[in-house]
Amino acid sequence: MGENFARVRHEGDERERLTCRTCGYIAYENPKIVVGSVIEVPDGVLLCRRAIQPRAGFWTLPAGYMEMGETVEEGARREAQEEALADIALDGILAVFSIARLGQVQIIFRAHLAKPGHGAGPESLEVRPFAWDAIPWDEIAFPSVRWALNAWHDGLGHPGPPVLNPPEDPRGTRPLPISLTNSQISGGGSAL
Amino acid sequence: MGENFARVRHEGDERERLTCRTCGYIAYENPKIVVGSVIEVPDGVLLCRRAIQPRAGFWTLPAGYMEMGETVEEGARREAQEEALADIALDGILAVFSIARLGQVQIIFRAHLAKPGHGAGPESLEVRPFAWDAIPWDEIAFPSVRWALNAWHDGLGHPGPPVLNPPEDPRGTRPLPISLTNSQISGGGSAL
Repeated sequence: MGENFARVRHEGDERERLTCRTCGYIAYENPKIVVGSVIEVPDGVLLCRRAIQPRAGFWTLPAGYMEMGETVEEGARREAQEEALADIALDGILAVFSIARLGQVQIIFRAHLAKPGHGAGPESLEVRPFAWDAIPWDEIAFPSVRWALNAWHDGLGHPGPPVLNPPEDPRGTRPLPISLTNSQISGGGSAL
Repeated sequence: MGENFARVRHEGDERERLTCRTCGYIAYENPKIVVGSVIEVPDGVLLCRRAIQPRAGFWTLPAGYMEMGETVEEGARREAQEEALADIALDGILAVFSIARLGQVQIIFRAHLAKPGHGAGPESLEVRPFAWDAIPWDEIAFPSVRWALNAWHDGLGHPGPPVLNPPEDPRGTRPLPISLTNSQISGGGSAL
Protein backbone atom coordinates (compact mmCIF):
# COMPACT_ATOMS: atom_id res chain seq x y z
CA MET A 1 0.00 0.00 0.00
CA GLY A 2 1.41 3.33 -1.01
CA GLU A 3 4.73 2.00 -2.37
CA ASN A 4 3.99 3.92 -5.55
CA PHE A 5 4.25 7.29 -3.83
CA ALA A 6 7.33 9.47 -3.51
CA ARG A 7 7.92 12.81 -1.78
CA VAL A 8 8.27 15.44 -4.51
CA ARG A 9 8.75 19.15 -4.23
CA HIS A 10 6.55 20.83 -6.85
CA GLU A 11 7.18 24.25 -8.34
CA GLY A 12 5.82 27.07 -6.20
CA ASP A 13 5.44 24.90 -3.12
CA GLU A 14 7.97 24.99 -0.31
CA ARG A 15 7.06 21.55 1.05
CA GLU A 16 7.49 18.08 -0.39
CA ARG A 17 4.19 16.37 -1.20
CA LEU A 18 3.38 12.67 -1.51
CA THR A 19 3.00 12.16 -5.26
CA CYS A 20 1.98 9.05 -7.20
CA ARG A 21 4.80 8.00 -9.57
CA THR A 22 2.26 6.62 -12.03
CA CYS A 23 -0.37 9.30 -12.40
CA GLY A 24 1.00 12.34 -10.58
CA TYR A 25 -1.81 12.43 -8.02
CA ILE A 26 -0.77 14.55 -5.04
CA ALA A 27 -1.95 13.13 -1.73
CA TYR A 28 -1.86 16.32 0.32
CA GLU A 29 -1.22 15.50 3.95
CA ASN A 30 -3.25 17.85 6.06
CA PRO A 31 -4.17 17.44 9.70
CA LYS A 32 -7.36 15.48 10.27
CA ILE A 33 -10.23 16.67 12.42
CA VAL A 34 -11.59 14.61 15.29
CA VAL A 35 -15.00 15.67 16.56
CA GLY A 36 -16.41 14.51 19.88
CA SER A 37 -18.27 15.55 22.99
CA VAL A 38 -18.45 15.45 26.75
CA ILE A 39 -22.07 14.42 27.30
CA GLU A 40 -23.51 15.57 30.61
CA VAL A 41 -26.17 13.25 32.06
CA PRO A 42 -28.01 13.54 35.39
CA ASP A 43 -25.59 11.17 37.08
CA GLY A 44 -22.34 12.47 35.55
CA VAL A 45 -20.78 12.15 32.10
CA LEU A 46 -21.06 9.35 29.54
CA LEU A 47 -17.91 7.39 28.77
CA CYS A 48 -17.37 4.58 26.26
CA ARG A 49 -15.13 1.57 26.85
CA ARG A 50 -13.26 0.95 23.59
CA ALA A 51 -13.91 -2.31 21.72
CA ILE A 52 -11.13 -1.58 19.20
CA GLN A 53 -7.43 -0.87 19.13
CA PRO A 54 -5.61 1.22 20.06
CA ARG A 55 -6.34 1.12 23.78
CA ALA A 56 -9.13 -1.46 23.64
CA GLY A 57 -10.75 -1.84 27.06
CA PHE A 58 -9.96 1.74 28.09
CA TRP A 59 -12.49 4.54 28.53
CA THR A 60 -12.92 7.38 26.05
CA LEU A 61 -15.34 10.05 24.85
CA PRO A 62 -17.60 9.41 21.85
CA ALA A 63 -15.39 10.94 19.15
CA GLY A 64 -13.95 10.14 15.76
CA TYR A 65 -12.81 11.46 12.40
CA MET A 66 -14.99 14.07 10.79
CA GLU A 67 -16.22 12.98 7.34
CA MET A 68 -16.54 14.98 4.12
CA GLY A 69 -19.85 16.74 3.61
CA GLU A 70 -20.73 17.25 7.26
CA THR A 71 -20.31 20.15 9.68
CA VAL A 72 -18.36 19.82 12.92
CA GLU A 73 -21.67 19.77 14.81
CA GLU A 74 -23.09 17.02 12.58
CA GLY A 75 -19.90 15.02 13.01
CA ALA A 76 -20.01 15.25 16.82
CA ARG A 77 -23.67 14.17 16.84
CA ARG A 78 -22.96 11.29 14.44
CA GLU A 79 -20.11 9.99 16.58
CA ALA A 80 -22.29 10.08 19.73
CA GLN A 81 -24.94 8.14 17.84
CA GLU A 82 -22.48 5.57 16.47
CA GLU A 83 -20.39 4.95 19.56
CA ALA A 84 -22.81 5.61 22.44
CA LEU A 85 -26.21 5.21 20.70
CA ALA A 86 -26.91 8.65 22.13
CA ASP A 87 -29.02 11.36 20.54
CA ILE A 88 -27.29 14.53 21.74
CA ALA A 89 -27.78 18.29 21.67
CA LEU A 90 -24.65 20.45 21.61
CA ASP A 91 -23.97 23.24 24.10
CA GLY A 92 -20.94 24.89 22.48
CA ILE A 93 -17.29 24.13 21.95
CA LEU A 94 -15.48 22.96 25.07
CA ALA A 95 -11.97 22.46 23.72
CA VAL A 96 -9.78 22.55 20.61
CA PHE A 97 -6.71 20.37 21.02
CA SER A 98 -3.84 20.08 18.53
CA ILE A 99 -2.11 16.70 18.51
CA ALA A 100 0.67 17.82 16.20
CA ARG A 101 2.63 14.56 16.42
CA LEU A 102 -0.39 12.72 14.99
CA GLY A 103 -1.47 15.45 12.58
CA GLN A 104 -4.77 15.78 14.40
CA VAL A 105 -7.02 18.57 15.65
CA GLN A 106 -9.74 17.61 18.12
CA ILE A 107 -12.85 19.77 18.41
CA ILE A 108 -14.74 18.71 21.54
CA PHE A 109 -18.24 19.97 22.37
CA ARG A 110 -20.20 20.22 25.61
CA ALA A 111 -23.41 18.24 25.10
CA HIS A 112 -26.43 16.75 26.79
CA LEU A 113 -28.89 14.05 25.78
CA ALA A 114 -31.62 15.30 23.45
CA LYS A 115 -33.55 12.10 24.24
CA PRO A 116 -32.91 9.75 27.17
CA GLY A 117 -31.06 6.57 26.30
CA HIS A 118 -27.58 5.32 25.51
CA GLY A 119 -25.84 2.04 24.75
CA ALA A 120 -22.76 0.44 23.26
CA GLY A 121 -22.27 0.92 19.51
CA PRO A 122 -20.06 -1.46 17.49
CA GLU A 123 -16.82 0.28 18.55
CA SER A 124 -17.72 0.23 22.26
CA LEU A 125 -17.78 -2.62 24.78
CA GLU A 126 -19.83 -0.64 27.26
CA VAL A 127 -21.20 2.89 27.63
CA ARG A 128 -22.20 4.30 30.97
CA PRO A 129 -22.38 7.45 33.09
CA PHE A 130 -19.68 8.20 35.63
CA ALA A 131 -20.01 10.64 38.51
CA TRP A 132 -16.97 12.94 38.56
CA ASP A 133 -15.54 11.24 41.65
CA ALA A 134 -15.94 7.79 40.07
CA ILE A 135 -14.14 8.44 36.77
CA PRO A 136 -11.55 5.66 36.32
CA TRP A 137 -8.59 7.96 35.68
CA ASP A 138 -6.15 5.06 35.42
CA GLU A 139 -8.20 3.47 32.68
CA ILE A 140 -8.68 6.50 30.43
CA ALA A 141 -7.63 5.77 26.86
CA PHE A 142 -5.82 8.97 25.85
CA PRO A 143 -4.36 12.12 27.44
CA SER A 144 -6.77 14.37 25.54
CA VAL A 145 -9.75 12.58 27.12
CA ARG A 146 -8.36 13.65 30.50
CA TRP A 147 -7.81 17.19 29.24
CA ALA A 148 -11.40 17.38 27.96
CA LEU A 149 -12.92 15.99 31.17
CA ASN A 150 -10.89 18.46 33.25
CA ALA A 151 -11.91 21.35 31.00
CA TRP A 152 -15.55 20.29 31.35
CA HIS A 153 -15.29 20.07 35.16
CA ASP A 154 -13.44 23.40 35.43
CA GLY A 155 -16.17 25.09 33.38
CA LEU A 156 -19.18 23.70 35.25
CA GLY A 157 -21.57 26.54 36.01
CA HIS A 158 -19.51 29.11 34.11
CA PRO A 159 -18.68 27.76 30.66
CA GLY A 160 -16.27 30.15 28.96
CA PRO A 161 -14.30 30.16 25.74
CA PRO A 162 -12.85 26.81 24.64
CA VAL A 163 -9.59 25.72 26.19
CA LEU A 164 -6.60 24.92 24.02
CA ASN A 165 -3.86 22.38 24.82
CA PRO A 166 -2.76 22.48 28.46
CA PRO A 167 0.60 24.31 28.45
CA GLU A 168 2.04 22.02 31.12
CA ASP A 169 1.46 18.87 29.05
CA PRO A 170 3.64 18.70 25.90
CA ARG A 171 2.18 15.44 24.61
CA GLY A 172 -0.08 17.12 22.09
CA THR A 173 2.43 19.54 20.66
CA ARG A 174 5.56 17.43 20.27
CA PRO A 175 6.90 17.82 16.71
CA LEU A 176 5.87 15.37 14.02
CA PRO A 177 8.25 12.42 13.60
CA ILE A 178 10.40 12.89 10.50
CA SER A 179 9.61 9.49 9.05
CA LEU A 180 5.85 9.72 8.91
CA THR A 181 4.68 6.69 6.97
CA ASN A 182 1.92 6.51 4.40
CA SER A 183 -0.14 4.22 6.56
CA GLN A 184 -0.09 6.75 9.37
CA ILE A 185 -1.16 9.44 6.96
CA SER A 186 -3.92 7.54 5.26
CA GLY A 187 -5.16 5.84 8.42
CA GLY A 188 -8.83 5.95 9.19
CA GLY A 189 -9.36 3.86 12.28
CA SER A 190 -9.44 5.24 15.76
CA ALA A 191 -9.09 8.75 16.69
CA LEU A 192 -8.73 10.39 20.08
CA MET B 1 -3.70 13.80 -12.38
CA GLY B 2 -5.56 11.28 -10.34
CA GLU B 3 -6.93 9.24 -13.26
CA ASN B 4 -5.50 6.18 -11.60
CA PHE B 5 -7.90 6.41 -8.66
CA ALA B 6 -11.30 4.76 -8.31
CA ARG B 7 -13.91 4.91 -5.56
CA VAL B 8 -13.87 1.55 -3.78
CA ARG B 9 -15.84 0.36 -0.79
CA HIS B 10 -13.48 -1.60 1.46
CA GLU B 11 -14.54 -4.27 3.93
CA GLY B 12 -15.67 -2.86 7.26
CA ASP B 13 -16.07 0.66 5.91
CA GLU B 14 -19.47 2.09 5.05
CA ARG B 15 -18.09 4.75 2.69
CA GLU B 16 -16.35 4.51 -0.66
CA ARG B 17 -12.72 5.65 -0.54
CA LEU B 18 -10.50 6.95 -3.36
CA THR B 19 -8.13 4.04 -4.00
CA CYS B 20 -5.14 3.81 -6.38
CA ARG B 21 -5.73 1.04 -8.94
CA THR B 22 -1.99 0.36 -9.11
CA CYS B 23 -0.83 0.16 -5.53
CA GLY B 24 -3.98 0.18 -3.43
CA TYR B 25 -3.14 3.43 -1.66
CA ILE B 26 -6.25 4.88 -0.04
CA ALA B 27 -6.45 8.67 -0.30
CA TYR B 28 -8.79 9.30 2.62
CA GLU B 29 -10.78 12.43 1.96
CA ASN B 30 -11.20 14.26 5.23
CA PRO B 31 -12.15 17.87 5.70
CA LYS B 32 -9.22 20.25 5.68
CA ILE B 33 -8.56 22.83 8.34
CA VAL B 34 -8.13 26.50 7.52
CA VAL B 35 -6.54 28.61 10.25
CA GLY B 36 -6.67 32.38 10.28
CA SER B 37 -7.17 35.45 12.38
CA VAL B 38 -8.89 38.78 12.75
CA ILE B 39 -5.96 41.02 13.73
CA GLU B 40 -6.96 44.07 15.75
CA VAL B 41 -4.73 47.09 15.22
CA PRO B 42 -5.07 50.60 16.71
CA ASP B 43 -6.87 51.86 13.63
CA GLY B 44 -9.12 48.84 12.98
CA VAL B 45 -8.47 45.37 11.59
CA LEU B 46 -5.87 44.19 9.08
CA LEU B 47 -7.15 42.92 5.74
CA CYS B 48 -5.21 41.45 2.81
CA ARG B 49 -6.04 42.04 -0.84
CA ARG B 50 -5.62 38.70 -2.62
CA ALA B 51 -2.91 38.41 -5.27
CA ILE B 52 -4.08 34.92 -6.27
CA GLN B 53 -7.19 33.15 -7.51
CA PRO B 54 -9.87 32.57 -6.54
CA ARG B 55 -11.13 36.09 -5.90
CA ALA B 56 -7.90 37.89 -6.74
CA GLY B 57 -8.19 41.60 -5.95
CA PHE B 58 -10.72 41.03 -3.17
CA TRP B 59 -10.09 41.49 0.56
CA THR B 60 -9.64 38.62 2.98
CA LEU B 61 -8.21 37.68 6.38
CA PRO B 62 -4.73 36.19 6.67
CA ALA B 63 -5.68 32.51 6.62
CA GLY B 64 -4.79 29.28 4.89
CA TYR B 65 -4.50 25.53 5.13
CA MET B 66 -3.02 24.15 8.33
CA GLU B 67 0.07 22.03 7.67
CA MET B 68 1.14 18.73 9.24
CA GLY B 69 3.26 19.03 12.37
CA GLU B 70 1.93 22.35 13.59
CA THR B 71 -0.76 23.31 16.11
CA VAL B 72 -3.76 25.45 15.16
CA GLU B 73 -2.12 28.39 16.95
CA GLU B 74 1.17 27.92 15.08
CA GLY B 75 -0.73 27.68 11.80
CA ALA B 76 -2.63 30.92 12.41
CA ARG B 77 0.60 32.73 13.32
CA ARG B 78 2.39 31.32 10.26
CA GLU B 79 -0.37 32.47 7.91
CA ALA B 80 -0.31 35.99 9.39
CA GLN B 81 3.46 36.05 8.84
CA GLU B 82 3.25 34.71 5.28
CA GLU B 83 0.32 36.76 4.01
CA ALA B 84 0.50 39.96 6.06
CA LEU B 85 4.17 39.96 7.24
CA ALA B 86 2.63 40.34 10.68
CA ASP B 87 3.98 38.92 13.93
CA ILE B 88 0.81 38.26 15.90
CA ALA B 89 -0.26 37.16 19.38
CA LEU B 90 -3.48 35.19 19.67
CA ASP B 91 -6.36 36.16 21.97
CA GLY B 92 -8.53 33.04 21.74
CA ILE B 93 -10.79 31.41 19.19
CA LEU B 94 -13.28 33.76 17.57
CA ALA B 95 -15.13 31.36 15.27
CA VAL B 96 -15.30 27.81 13.97
CA PHE B 97 -17.01 27.66 10.58
CA SER B 98 -17.87 24.49 8.66
CA ILE B 99 -17.87 24.90 4.89
CA ALA B 100 -19.29 21.44 4.22
CA ARG B 101 -19.65 21.93 0.46
CA LEU B 102 -15.87 22.48 0.25
CA GLY B 103 -14.91 19.94 2.91
CA GLN B 104 -13.41 22.69 5.02
CA VAL B 105 -13.39 23.75 8.68
CA GLN B 106 -12.15 27.25 9.44
CA ILE B 107 -10.73 28.03 12.88
CA ILE B 108 -10.42 31.80 13.21
CA PHE B 109 -8.62 33.49 16.13
CA ARG B 110 -8.83 36.96 17.61
CA ALA B 111 -5.33 38.41 17.48
CA HIS B 112 -3.26 41.55 17.87
CA LEU B 113 0.22 42.52 16.67
CA ALA B 114 3.00 41.17 18.90
CA LYS B 115 5.34 43.65 17.19
CA PRO B 116 4.32 46.68 15.11
CA GLY B 117 4.54 46.24 11.37
CA HIS B 118 2.76 44.58 8.49
CA GLY B 119 3.09 44.31 4.72
CA ALA B 120 2.07 42.33 1.65
CA GLY B 121 3.39 38.74 1.47
CA PRO B 122 3.62 36.91 -1.89
CA GLU B 123 -0.08 36.00 -1.90
CA SER B 124 -1.24 39.55 -1.13
CA LEU B 125 -1.33 42.65 -3.33
CA GLU B 126 -1.76 44.96 -0.36
CA VAL B 127 -2.28 44.67 3.40
CA ARG B 128 -3.73 47.50 5.43
CA PRO B 129 -5.89 48.37 8.43
CA PHE B 130 -9.52 49.27 7.97
CA ALA B 131 -11.68 51.08 10.50
CA TRP B 132 -14.96 49.18 11.00
CA ASP B 133 -16.93 51.81 9.08
CA ALA B 134 -14.49 51.74 6.18
CA ILE B 135 -14.47 47.98 5.53
CA PRO B 136 -15.15 47.48 1.79
CA TRP B 137 -18.03 45.01 2.23
CA ASP B 138 -18.64 44.77 -1.50
CA GLU B 139 -15.06 43.74 -2.11
CA ILE B 140 -14.76 41.02 0.53
CA ALA B 141 -13.50 37.75 -0.97
CA PHE B 142 -15.64 35.13 0.80
CA PRO B 143 -18.81 34.92 2.92
CA SER B 144 -16.88 33.50 5.88
CA VAL B 145 -14.66 36.61 5.99
CA ARG B 146 -17.84 38.64 6.52
CA TRP B 147 -19.02 36.19 9.19
CA ALA B 148 -15.70 36.43 11.03
CA LEU B 149 -15.58 40.22 10.88
CA ASN B 150 -19.15 40.44 12.19
CA ALA B 151 -18.37 37.97 14.99
CA TRP B 152 -15.32 40.05 15.92
CA HIS B 153 -17.34 43.28 15.96
CA ASP B 154 -20.21 41.72 17.93
CA GLY B 155 -17.74 40.48 20.56
CA LEU B 156 -15.81 43.73 21.05
CA GLY B 157 -15.44 44.38 24.75
CA HIS B 158 -17.10 41.13 25.76
CA PRO B 159 -15.51 38.27 23.85
CA GLY B 160 -17.43 35.09 24.54
CA PRO B 161 -17.34 31.53 23.26
CA PRO B 162 -16.60 31.11 19.54
CA VAL B 163 -19.46 31.52 17.13
CA LEU B 164 -20.38 28.72 14.73
CA ASN B 165 -21.90 29.16 11.26
CA PRO B 166 -24.61 31.84 11.15
CA PRO B 167 -27.91 29.89 11.04
CA GLU B 168 -29.47 32.36 8.61
CA ASP B 169 -26.75 31.84 5.97
CA PRO B 170 -26.77 28.33 4.45
CA ARG B 171 -23.73 28.85 2.24
CA GLY B 172 -21.38 27.03 4.56
CA THR B 173 -23.55 24.02 5.26
CA ARG B 174 -24.94 23.13 1.86
CA PRO B 175 -24.31 19.44 1.17
CA LEU B 176 -21.23 18.33 -0.68
CA PRO B 177 -21.70 18.04 -4.47
CA ILE B 178 -21.98 14.39 -5.47
CA SER B 179 -19.33 14.58 -8.16
CA LEU B 180 -16.47 15.90 -6.10
CA THR B 181 -13.40 15.72 -8.31
CA ASN B 182 -9.92 14.63 -7.33
CA SER B 183 -8.49 18.04 -8.02
CA GLN B 184 -10.97 19.58 -5.60
CA ILE B 185 -9.98 17.04 -2.98
CA SER B 186 -6.25 17.25 -3.40
CA GLY B 187 -6.20 20.99 -3.91
CA GLY B 188 -3.81 23.04 -1.86
CA GLY B 189 -4.06 26.60 -3.07
CA SER B 190 -6.32 29.15 -1.53
CA ALA B 191 -8.50 28.64 1.37
CA LEU B 192 -11.09 30.92 2.90
